[in-house]
Amino acid sequence: MPKEIPCIAIDAMGGDHGPQIVIPGALTAARSKGLSLILVGDEKILSQELKQHKTSGLDIEIVHAPEVAGMSEKPSEVLRKKKDTSIGVAFRLVREGRAQGVVSAGNSGATLACGMFILGRIKGIERPALASILPSEKGPTILIDVGANVDCKPYHLVQFGLMADVLARDVLHIKEPRVGILTIGEEEGKGNKLVKEAVELFRMSSLNFTGNIEGRDVFTGKADIIVCDGFVGNVALKLMEGLATSLTKLLKAEVKKSLLARVGFLLGIRALRRFGRRIDYAEYGGAPLLGLKGIAIVCHGSSSSKAITNAVHMAATFIRNHANEHLVEGLSANKDLSIFAKNALPHL
Amino acid sequence: MPKEIPCIAIDAMGGDHGPQIVIPGALTAARSKGLSLILVGDEKILSQELKQHKTSGLDIEIVHAPEVAGMSEKPSEVLRKKKDTSIGVAFRLVREGRAQGVVSAGNSGATLACGMFILGRIKGIERPALASILPSEKGPTILIDVGANVDCKPYHLVQFGLMADVLARDVLHIKEPRVGILTIGEEEGKGNKLVKEAVELFRMSSLNFTGNIEGRDVFTGKADIIVCDGFVGNVALKLMEGLATSLTKLLKAEVKKSLLARVGFLLGIRALRRFGRRIDYAEYGGAPLLGLKGIAIVCHGSSSSKAITNAVHMAATFIRNHANEHLVEGLSANKDLSIFAKNALPHL
Repeated sequence: MPKEIPCIAIDAMGGDHGPQIVIPGALTAARSKGLSLILVGDEKILSQELKQHKTSGLDIEIVHAPEVAGMSEKPSEVLRKKKDTSIGVAFRLVREGRAQGVVSAGNSGATLACGMFILGRIKGIERPALASILPSEKGPTILIDVGANVDCKPYHLVQFGLMADVLARDVLHIKEPRVGILTIGEEEGKGNKLVKEAVELFRMSSLNFTGNIEGRDVFTGKADIIVCDGFVGNVALKLMEGLATSLTKLLKAEVKKSLLARVGFLLGIRALRRFGRRIDYAEYGGAPLLGLKGIAIVCHGSSSSKAITNAVHMAATFIRNHANEHLVEGLSANKDLSIFAKNALPHL
Repeated sequence: MPKEIPCIAIDAMGGDHGPQIVIPGALTAARSKGLSLILVGDEKILSQELKQHKTSGLDIEIVHAPEVAGMSEKPSEVLRKKKDTSIGVAFRLVREGRAQGVVSAGNSGATLACGMFILGRIKGIERPALASILPSEKGPTILIDVGANVDCKPYHLVQFGLMADVLARDVLHIKEPRVGILTIGEEEGKGNKLVKEAVELFRMSSLNFTGNIEGRDVFTGKADIIVCDGFVGNVALKLMEGLATSLTKLLKAEVKKSLLARVGFLLGIRALRRFGRRIDYAEYGGAPLLGLKGIAIVCHGSSSSKAITNAVHMAATFIRNHANEHLVEGLSANKDLSIFAKNALPHL
């Protein structure tokens, strides 16, 4: 079998800082062997930016897209009114087989919408989900879903587990990922209706299900994958960002109280910022949108070039290690559970 | 009108450290004028502990309760099998009019259950709720519900807002409390089904409703009251505790890297601990359980004496300022909304 070279379509216009940040980040990733790029956006602007960089020997192409999805535009309106945005064209390239993955730091709602409607779901996947890779005391932990689906059924949560399972194995190289469910008590039977029903399904699944995870155990590494609905996951993610920001301010205020403390605190703030950045996806570059016919990495609008580099690497690893094929196998191994896509558990 | 002297029933057996911590904390509160105490628990043990302290001039009584609700006992079993626990007897004293409030650092599930079943709800209150008073950049912020109700209807959230409103006014002395709803985007219309429907009801209510609050704004003081269902609130609260603990460990690890940093970091860790303790209710002593015919303050099992003192003060302030009478007025001012207790909004 010839080695496949992953091709990643980059939404080069996306993000708060646009091509000046996105292109150098993507180029750094392309300098690793075995990776090709398609930069999508305004041809003139992209060519101009590309001239600033060394690109000899790199497998790079520009594909023109005349429009941009604004950071605050409604996803539904982007889909309806703007047919040729950089993010939309990037997903069309994957649909046409010219690329296998998309990286975007643009309007994340538009990225989700274009991913679902232009690229489409893997057969059998009910709801694509957004995963966030968080730091824990024992290594990376996947929190899924962090905002793609606000109202979920129990079976959706099991599918989130299956998607995160391939991410953990094929991208994070975790051998037997332990899957937990985010809830309000360690003991079995604790949770809301959604969680209680999902626990029953997880127990019937092929996943290495370890039971309940409380909020206080998200960072202790008690599970490699923590499943929740997208409302809870998004609130949780933003709460962490907010807490890290407020703690930084708190420490800064403390600094003023003591000269001796100043140096130490500055280092402390640096550690906190580092933590904040890890939550902000910089370490892994972005949040993978899973369950699509391809892969999309949703980066923060304020992403650094380094975050873009890491996101491209994550997309390429995902493709190289055939994660979506493994997801199809996972779905197939759990196909008995698919009857719960439409029906509730009879005894609950 | 003669000035009423609040009487607080103390679950003197509750908490990880029992009477040795609870009693000195309660006595400190009783040394302020205008407050009487009933200590509930094993008479022998309590008398023994009381002898260690100066109590002359204090208005203190002991009421015997032969049983204790263990920290890990199921609330439903405590209610069914143990009729004379210290927490149960404390609530009976309020029901009989001998006390107006309860403070407990014992099994919090049992406290919730005894509060609801022994003391009972204020007429018109559908679901009593647990409030947590969090630190924010601009002062205290109330998060409600943090775990009493895992599956909620939109109307329940509005009632949580009404309960927190009197807490904010009568205990935290906030004049026009701004009420927000915890959700996943700032723009109107963002959220799950529960939140979207609740927003409609909040707009019809008498509350000073300010709209959506994202996780990242919990600590910025954008609202004085943040309403959510008890599942989301409990996950959020425990996530904050976990994050503060993990950040402390992270900073400790950094300390080892530099001698210079050591002193600064130790101060930093102290600041973090202080923050963690504030989340852990120490500043206000505990989480008030609102909506009951009386008031209950649920303290952390690991509460310090200081936390108990503050909890007793909070309970006394709540009673002294007639918060429950104001809650009844609030319910009455919003009685048109009570049709939504049973029915969903017709157009949603």
